[in-house]
Amino acid sequence: MSRFFTSRYRHLTPYQPGEQPCFNSFLKLNTNESPFPPTPQVQEAAREAAGKLHLYSDPECTALRQALATTYRLSPRQLLCGNGSDELLYLAFLAFCGETCPAVFPDITYGFYSVFAEMTRVPFRTVPLLPDFSVDLFHEDLDQGTIFLANPNAPTGLWIPPEQLRAFLERHSRQLVVVDEAYIDFAGESALGLLEQHANLLVIQTFSKSRSLAGGRLGFCAAHPDIIADLNTLRNSLNPYNVNRMTMAAGIASLSDPVSFSRNCQRICQIREACRHALEKLGFTVTASKANFLFASHPAVSGKKLYQQLKAQGILVRHFDQPRISSYIRITIGTQPQMDRLLDALETILLTRKESL
Amino acid sequence: MSRFFTSRYRHLTPYQPGEQPCFNSFLKLNTNESPFPPTPQVQEAAREAAGKLHLYSDPECTALRQALATTYRLSPRQLLCGNGSDELLYLAFLAFCGETCPAVFPDITYGFYSVFAEMTRVPFRTVPLLPDFSVDLFHEDLDQGTIFLANPNAPTGLWIPPEQLRAFLERHSRQLVVVDEAYIDFAGESALGLLEQHANLLVIQTFSKSRSLAGGRLGFCAAHPDIIADLNTLRNSLNPYNVNRMTMAAGIASLSDPVSFSRNCQRICQIREACRHALEKLGFTVTASKANFLFASHPAVSGKKLYQQLKAQGILVRHFDQPRISSYIRITIGTQPQMDRLLDALETILLTRKESL
Repeated sequence: MSRFFTSRYRHLTPYQPGEQPCFNSFLKLNTNESPFPPTPQVQEAAREAAGKLHLYSDPECTALRQALATTYRLSPRQLLCGNGSDELLYLAFLAFCGETCPAVFPDITYGFYSVFAEMTRVPFRTVPLLPDFSVDLFHEDLDQGTIFLANPNAPTGLWIPPEQLRAFLERHSRQLVVVDEAYIDFAGESALGLLEQHANLLVIQTFSKSRSLAGGRLGFCAAHPDIIADLNTLRNSLNPYNVNRMTMAAGIASLSDPVSFSRNCQRICQIREACRHALEKLGFTVTASKANFLFASHPAVSGKKLYQQLKAQGILVRHFDQPRISSYIRITIGTQPQMDRLLDALETILLTRKESL
Repeated sequence: MSRFFTSRYRHLTPYQPGEQPCFNSFLKLNTNESPFPPTPQVQEAAREAAGKLHLYSDPECTALRQALATTYRLSPRQLLCGNGSDELLYLAFLAFCGETCPAVFPDITYGFYSVFAEMTRVPFRTVPLLPDFSVDLFHEDLDQGTIFLANPNAPTGLWIPPEQLRAFLERHSRQLVVVDEAYIDFAGESALGLLEQHANLLVIQTFSKSRSLAGGRLGFCAAHPDIIADLNTLRNSLNPYNVNRMTMAAGIASLSDPVSFSRNCQRICQIREACRHALEKLGFTVTASKANFLFASHPAVSGKKLYQQLKAQGILVRHFDQPRISSYIRITIGTQPQMDRLLDALETILLTRKESL
């Protein structure tokens, strides 16, 4: 720490992303990336866009927002793009929380929410998940402030279906509800369909998972045009050219290929269900995850041990050393051969343990 | 504005970037872009990187920081990369300004500084430029707070040479001095050479201008490792994957080609000097700009008129409607044919004016 660092942030604990080893030898099942590379069309679009990098990107992301509007049957005025969905979440904390309007979110959820609250210096409250890890949608602490719901939730993967969300939006019509749908394409119907009737809804999505663009950094959000305008005021005050030309082109190319997109999502869901079944056969408890990861614990081996012993075998999964979920590991869904390798490794770990008893 | 927008930012005036018309018919001399497209090697690097977009980018930007370290003879620990240099400037305001440490900068400078101060809710003071538009480096208001100096300054283009900067850093050794070198490659020696002896210096540079990567969004900063660590703490709390894979690859490819880089910088400086001479012959007053733009005013036509009449002829330049500089226009240096077109247009404007008298 330098002598110049502001006292405001001296005690800040940054978000800890999953390890990103520089060596390719690891099987990475720890950051919920897609195992499927982007299509050649995406690559070609990026190459072409790179020819004009001497010119600034369109700060309005006009073409990309138009493509999103077509895909999701929205108006471009309802849409805003970000350098990853994290940027948009940060803007939402800046724009819609404050001294008298705390941020409210479940105690077990995406780890960045509490960091964003600290960064933007707004108060926040957490609402404990119910014993089955579902969100307590009737908790009284949700009755004030701006609500952030990851849906499906991370790292549990549990999903709130639209009819429950609709009722929730109605009960909280005076509050803004931010629904972070990073994993929605593996789950079911998006809350985007609720925008028309709910002016208190802000939906945030990402191209990182289902659209194979984690390394491209692209997210978008959708809401009533007034809400989008507020976010845009802040974006224009931070980084008006936040999305680069290549990423915009890659995003448009991805949206223009719904067939590859659906097929990849389907494949991941199929592999997820097969893997869940196999894990349960090995004695794991697995949450009903609707995301591109599974959240699993075993009665015989701690989450930390599982994480460590998988790492020793060259497989990275995510372990969160925090109350209630420390016995779990979060496993990203890869290809079937990758999951087979994981399952073999887990079997070995369990077998070795039994033998050593 | 939505009913959810925080009162904190209701009166915020975002930064106004230069117009980005969607039509290519305009000659754009308004956002200081390079007229030279990136090399085929940059394009190829972007294409190759796009093949792995399903994987997150390296949050440490290891390879890019190594390439920067080699180019600028620094240690990777002294370096941090950003999604454009604006992001790094914002982080600097967050990290190094506060209630008791205001931001201080010239009254005429890069328009984003005051916006960043408002966004981060830190007090700021401006120091008036001297009548010749040079920075008053002995002004007493510079004696407290974190100092931001664009060098060369925008939109005047005036440059503080290293020996003056060195003395300034010594006089202000208890304060952090942020030197924003967006245009340094068209000027002269960088302040990077002063880092070794001055632990109170933070240098920020961009790939947008001299490296033809405006649309790629890449900036970097260099300072003592402790200062970099502070910025990194905040970056990791905002957007750890802020630089995407394609941009990283494009940046590395650009650094690996110092010949194209130098040639382009030299060409722009030559064209700038020729254009300055031609403007003076037309009766313009032109500042001694060391950037890739000229800042010029004419005794017979107002800055606003010049801007409007050039726009009517399909040429965009930048006009700032603010005290002391409203008679000026800022003209980005393009190719020689582009500048010839601009000069022809200005000649026509001046001629038409004379005839109408």
